[in-house]
Amino acid sequence: MKFEIQCTRHAARRARLYCEHGLVDTPAFMPVGTYGAVKGMQPSILEALGTQIILANTFHLMLRPGAKLIEAQGGLHGFMQWRRPILTDSGGFQIFSLGALRTITEEGVHFRSPLTGESIFLTPEISVEVQKQLQSDIVMVLDDCTPYPASEKVVRQSMALSLRWAKRCHCAHQAGGSQAALFGIVQGGMYEKERQASLEGLLNIGFDGYAMGGLSVGEPKDLMFEVLEKTLPLLPAHHPRYLMGVGTPSDIARAVALGADLFDCVLPTRHARNGHLFTSEGVVRIRNAVHKNAKRPLDERCACSTCQHYSRAYLHHLDRCKDPLGVVLNTLHNLHTYQTLMKDLQRHIEHGTLSSFVKDIF
Amino acid sequence: MKFEIQCTRHAARRARLYCEHGLVDTPAFMPVGTYGAVKGMQPSILEALGTQIILANTFHLMLRPGAKLIEAQGGLHGFMQWRRPILTDSGGFQIFSLGALRTITEEGVHFRSPLTGESIFLTPEISVEVQKQLQSDIVMVLDDCTPYPASEKVVRQSMALSLRWAKRCHCAHQAGGSQAALFGIVQGGMYEKERQASLEGLLNIGFDGYAMGGLSVGEPKDLMFEVLEKTLPLLPAHHPRYLMGVGTPSDIARAVALGADLFDCVLPTRHARNGHLFTSEGVVRIRNAVHKNAKRPLDERCACSTCQHYSRAYLHHLDRCKDPLGVVLNTLHNLHTYQTLMKDLQRHIEHGTLSSFVKDIF
Repeated sequence: MKFEIQCTRHAARRARLYCEHGLVDTPAFMPVGTYGAVKGMQPSILEALGTQIILANTFHLMLRPGAKLIEAQGGLHGFMQWRRPILTDSGGFQIFSLGALRTITEEGVHFRSPLTGESIFLTPEISVEVQKQLQSDIVMVLDDCTPYPASEKVVRQSMALSLRWAKRCHCAHQAGGSQAALFGIVQGGMYEKERQASLEGLLNIGFDGYAMGGLSVGEPKDLMFEVLEKTLPLLPAHHPRYLMGVGTPSDIARAVALGADLFDCVLPTRHARNGHLFTSEGVVRIRNAVHKNAKRPLDERCACSTCQHYSRAYLHHLDRCKDPLGVVLNTLHNLHTYQTLMKDLQRHIEHGTLSSFVKDIF
Repeated sequence: MKFEIQCTRHAARRARLYCEHGLVDTPAFMPVGTYGAVKGMQPSILEALGTQIILANTFHLMLRPGAKLIEAQGGLHGFMQWRRPILTDSGGFQIFSLGALRTITEEGVHFRSPLTGESIFLTPEISVEVQKQLQSDIVMVLDDCTPYPASEKVVRQSMALSLRWAKRCHCAHQAGGSQAALFGIVQGGMYEKERQASLEGLLNIGFDGYAMGGLSVGEPKDLMFEVLEKTLPLLPAHHPRYLMGVGTPSDIARAVALGADLFDCVLPTRHARNGHLFTSEGVVRIRNAVHKNAKRPLDERCACSTCQHYSRAYLHHLDRCKDPLGVVLNTLHNLHTYQTLMKDLQRHIEHGTLSSFVKDIF
């Protein structure tokens, strides 16, 4: 993987990431394709929206349909017929979300499959192996995602475990001889000192990119940005910086200004399925009866094919009828909004007009 | 509406139907877009599959979102952004399906909305008015669909009521000054004499096209074809003949050989949603565990984009995950199969090779 910075404005960077399956212009947003599909979206539609990279969930895919099956189908690219880069998470965040259903040991995590009840053991080595079977372009280390709130002692222990796991992931990745990039994940909760210790540990190991983990887990938004403001400048400038699981359009814009390059979030896709649509006038809840007779498009200022063709009344109707076409048209719109935002952010970095653009959004 | 027969081979005809919104090559299959959408399908995909006409359900649309709303949105074409012809049924068949929930009188049908419980009254005049609001290209008369089995006396009374309603629909349609075509529906159950009486009555009124109704309602398939063999030759040759609600690919092929021109059926779309996929080797149930690891496409001989790109394993996986993309890809395949069948039938009529082609399918 090559990371080529084209220009920087204060902390913000406009760059290109060259992966095994193609290039990614950053700042970039990765739509989430949990089970080997961005729900309802054909890859050709994702490409037409300007999507250059998607995220897939290791945890979900190892349970269904299984990593070996996907490997035999030509990896995730062959299975889902997506030709461009894929980043796979490590399963850490999903295991964190299982709460009481999992047991964490030094060796790894024991949990029961939410699908079959089967007992499963995930270790750093297995996570790396599974991601290799999926044949992703960017592999994430397995981490222990610290809850919020948590005492500094708990955070320190969790962060230290994540570091030991990161080292084991690095060894396994090297031993596997994979062409994929490997990213480390900075943990340490909301404590500056622990964040720094986590980063130092990761830098000693050495990764292709660095992610900010353990954020957007329930903490106040101001606190998240406080952590970002303190930690992002410490991340090595010549490696991509990935802010995991963030966020709303304005969160992304603010984080880009602070120097983050990569983002993923279920918001645009999940919100689309629930009829929450991002527009230039804010979020429109298309399920609301006020849209029943509305002839105007969802967003007059949007160039997506949903807004070019359909009325709010039609989208409201599809939602009421639970027609899968509603999922398709809503998701198409929300992803178009996100991808347009990323192109705008890239352009404003190039033109040196980022800060006023971010202020406008915020 | 103009109906131009290009060639005939025995009973079969290759023709063109010129509607307000464009031409339809016949024999033609109409995908069913119950609620103003062929579930999951963008109109651009339907067009790319060669779809020239779709069917929409008056009964469903008058209940949700309502015909006046659709009229205000530029009719069904504007609402759903489908540019080509639309045939609307009259609501008769759906009311028949309501069973005990409706009361039929000379004036019309009283029923309760299955959505809201609201009491609704549908008459021949209201059905025609609603179809006018939907701005369909082909309007169907409201009919009383006779159940099977039924005594000849019951069938005769029902058929006679349908005829009186057909006359009222014709008057209302004339009075409304609509540009749309109006089709009559031949009823009369499985009784040759009643079918003939129904047809005579319709011919006395005079319609733009004639449909065979009250078939595919539970009778043995041989009996349906016996009725078709006796009745289709009596329908006027220079008007389109529409076989309502039929059917499987082989049913359609056999009925084309007997002289039917237009077909609609929920089979390809509903089956697609349930994972029953039509292939050159018969119906494949993609939900079946045997497909879990299958690398081969659904149908090696199929040129649709689903079969060109995806494995059976991927379609199986999407079905298991209930991903709307599965609905999209399955529906795309089944409709491609149906539209390819219609093009094959058209070509074999032109080339005089229809009977051997139909024998092969059967």
